[in-house]
Amino acid sequence: MSQRMPQAEVAPQGPVFSRIVLGLWRLAEWQMTPAQRVRFLQQALELGINTIDQADIYGDYQSETLLGEALNAAPELKSAFRFVSKCGICLPSPHRPAHTVHHYDTSRAHIIASAENSLQAMGIKQLDLLLIHRPDPLMDADEIAGAFLHLQQSGKVRHFGVSNFTAAQFDLLAARVPLVTNQLELSVLQQQALHDGTLDQCQRLRIAPMIWSALGGGTLFQQPAPNAQVARVQNELQRQSAASGLPASVIALSWVLQHPSKPLVLTGSGRVQALQQAVQACNHTLSRPDWFALWTAAAGHALP
Amino acid sequence: MSQRMPQAEVAPQGPVFSRIVLGLWRLAEWQMTPAQRVRFLQQALELGINTIDQADIYGDYQSETLLGEALNAAPELKSAFRFVSKCGICLPSPHRPAHTVHHYDTSRAHIIASAENSLQAMGIKQLDLLLIHRPDPLMDADEIAGAFLHLQQSGKVRHFGVSNFTAAQFDLLAARVPLVTNQLELSVLQQQALHDGTLDQCQRLRIAPMIWSALGGGTLFQQPAPNAQVARVQNELQRQSAASGLPASVIALSWVLQHPSKPLVLTGSGRVQALQQAVQACNHTLSRPDWFALWTAAAGHALP
Amino acid sequence: MSQRMPQAEVAPQGPVFSRIVLGLWRLAEWQMTPAQRVRFLQQALELGINTIDQADIYGDYQSETLLGEALNAAPELKSAFRFVSKCGICLPSPHRPAHTVHHYDTSRAHIIASAENSLQAMGIKQLDLLLIHRPDPLMDADEIAGAFLHLQQSGKVRHFGVSNFTAAQFDLLAARVPLVTNQLELSVLQQQALHDGTLDQCQRLRIAPMIWSALGGGTLFQQPAPNAQVARVQNELQRQSAASGLPASVIALSWVLQHPSKPLVLTGSGRVQALQQAVQACNHTLSRPDWFALWTAAAGHALP
Repeated sequence: MSQRMPQAEVAPQGPVFSRIVLGLWRLAEWQMTPAQRVRFLQQALELGINTIDQADIYGDYQSETLLGEALNAAPELKSAFRFVSKCGICLPSPHRPAHTVHHYDTSRAHIIASAENSLQAMGIKQLDLLLIHRPDPLMDADEIAGAFLHLQQSGKVRHFGVSNFTAAQFDLLAARVPLVTNQLELSVLQQQALHDGTLDQCQRLRIAPMIWSALGGGTLFQQPAPNAQVARVQNELQRQSAASGLPASVIALSWVLQHPSKPLVLTGSGRVQALQQAVQACNHTLSRPDWFALWTAAAGHALP
Repeated sequence: MSQRMPQAEVAPQGPVFSRIVLGLWRLAEWQMTPAQRVRFLQQALELGINTIDQADIYGDYQSETLLGEALNAAPELKSAFRFVSKCGICLPSPHRPAHTVHHYDTSRAHIIASAENSLQAMGIKQLDLLLIHRPDPLMDADEIAGAFLHLQQSGKVRHFGVSNFTAAQFDLLAARVPLVTNQLELSVLQQQALHDGTLDQCQRLRIAPMIWSALGGGTLFQQPAPNAQVARVQNELQRQSAASGLPASVIALSWVLQHPSKPLVLTGSGRVQALQQAVQACNHTLSRPDWFALWTAAAGHALP
Repeated sequence: MSQRMPQAEVAPQGPVFSRIVLGLWRLAEWQMTPAQRVRFLQQALELGINTIDQADIYGDYQSETLLGEALNAAPELKSAFRFVSKCGICLPSPHRPAHTVHHYDTSRAHIIASAENSLQAMGIKQLDLLLIHRPDPLMDADEIAGAFLHLQQSGKVRHFGVSNFTAAQFDLLAARVPLVTNQLELSVLQQQALHDGTLDQCQRLRIAPMIWSALGGGTLFQQPAPNAQVARVQNELQRQSAASGLPASVIALSWVLQHPSKPLVLTGSGRVQALQQAVQACNHTLSRPDWFALWTAAAGHALP
């Protein structure tokens, strides 16, 4: 690959991450041996992808441990990567017998314990970024800020952010503690963040969102198309793919990457080719007519 | 009752009220004699409930007068209570022959006249808090601020707030005059305020919301349950009631009271037992799993 | 006409326009000769309407040219009027062969070229106000601000604003460059702006909105009424018209004009009588009961 992998300052005084972030929420599903995991991480690095996205709950609380096995087998990777994790969701699991009910917990004790547990599972000393995974209706902003400050002062976490927060929820927590990102869903098939003020807020605050499900969770490429909207989008992607010679997934990722909020995009695949295409997408820009042709295909009607 | 009734600073530099507020919007329906009204007020005070919520329109414009009769019969109650009233709604009524159409009026003249009329009806010298009852599409924020300032300088009203305002409407009026609360609906059955930014705004500004209909207007306890959602919530309340030994209404009120915006909760009942249960709710905290089990019962689906 | 045409400061340090603005989006449809266009403009001026609303795309990119013909035939009109135009929409058109797809373009190059083209088409030296016509999901606020600054420093445009922006979109762009208005739809039949925070934002920032489709695009007067809502509103307008002796259109425009955000209202008609009625509406104020009777007729239910 001769493609250049751009780096992004996530926020003023925030961390610097690769625009493409290695999302490991399906790591347990990939059934890789430790050696395969090491090789996959090396290949990501070779592509310039130097940031890993995790969460305590991924893979039924096992994804961070699986990653930790690989990192301990190849400890030089620990300093090569930036690490993002999340906390705040409590899932019933054999690995968390205390969780009898699916609930959220953004108490000081849970945030600190979850972050420390993530560090231990991955075998690293510091998280570059810790996110509140979902907006918790019971979140006490002062208490969260206190937990974040404690983690920062003890050197365990460098920066903090949120995920799936509305603009009002972001304003609340950001009034108490600096936040460097809001991890949001955005794809040609799921454009809510274009309308609900979250991406406007990110751009206004010069905070780069991190985008999950940028390929619509795979629905974009499902055959046959599950509904008329997906069929329209697939047709337009095929047209642009034929015209440009680029894979449809590159076009779909470029569509997200060129949003003016300068989003980082998470991958979700264990295939190196998928990572290559994501890197390729960083170096492609859709014309405005092509960008809006995809918008229109998804909407099913012309622009207003 | 040995339960402690906590007091709450409604806002920085705002009034201090009991967490449980005596809501008198149904006072006229209770058909109490003046002596019964005095006794009811005394029982509220004995429970630590030292704040009364009124509005000009309650009881077809008669609730404040009925309260005034009791206060004049036992004038020592006037200094024992804090008084909240509201204005801005104009209802057709035999008691307001000038109102030919149900409309809103937040003009300077109406606000001042309504507040003065509330004082006269209740036989008191000062309101601790006056609220705009509903967002008026014709509200001129400068005019309202002018009316509030006049009422404050003349000693007739100490603090000001709003009721049922969106976050944008609150921002508008708060840009012209300090507001100490937004009186909102919240219950297990009506969770919109958790999502629409109003409670996020309250917490961000350190303003305590005042909650109306915290028991869903009685629907929570309707037998048989009017729909599947209510049935699910009733089942979960019964489960928690059996496990804790507390009445279901205590659990439902605790669910509201423990929101991190530190809400005050209005009662709506003329029964002393209902007031006792509200006070009891101030001293109970649901575990997070129990809180989210009620959330989930109301939503009908798991948390995201 | 002895009616007074009020002038409005659109924003602090903003332009001063007549409350009624001559909207020329249908100019091409009116099939006027150049002399008729001159006469129409003179009649508007005689009524006190000294501001013209245009956009590059109006009349399939021909409305500004048709206006320019009239202005060149009667050049004294150029200094008598204030000129508003818009940019950012790209429509396929024989007059824009490069536009293969309906899309938006808020790039620096497009904004500057569009404004310069508007000046040339109308034969004038300066726009008093340039608006971004629609919120562009690809708008880069820094880039737009740069384009605006360039146009201002070169003397080509005095002030800037937006049209159809949500409150969050407005906040984004206003964080980079001063905006003096948000051009919004509002009528008895289309009240969304009363609820979505845009008019609250305008009033808070002391920015006057410019209102399009204040008569519901003509639907208000369609016979027979196309649906029950329109029928209810027409009945109420007729009742108020009979009671006041004013045309229904005057009442419908007054309903918009008396919003406390002090909106400017665009006309859409080529008939002088329609302009006269708009001016008349500036000098009429509905009583609150009448204003809310129209609200209620449109909603189909009583106020909350």
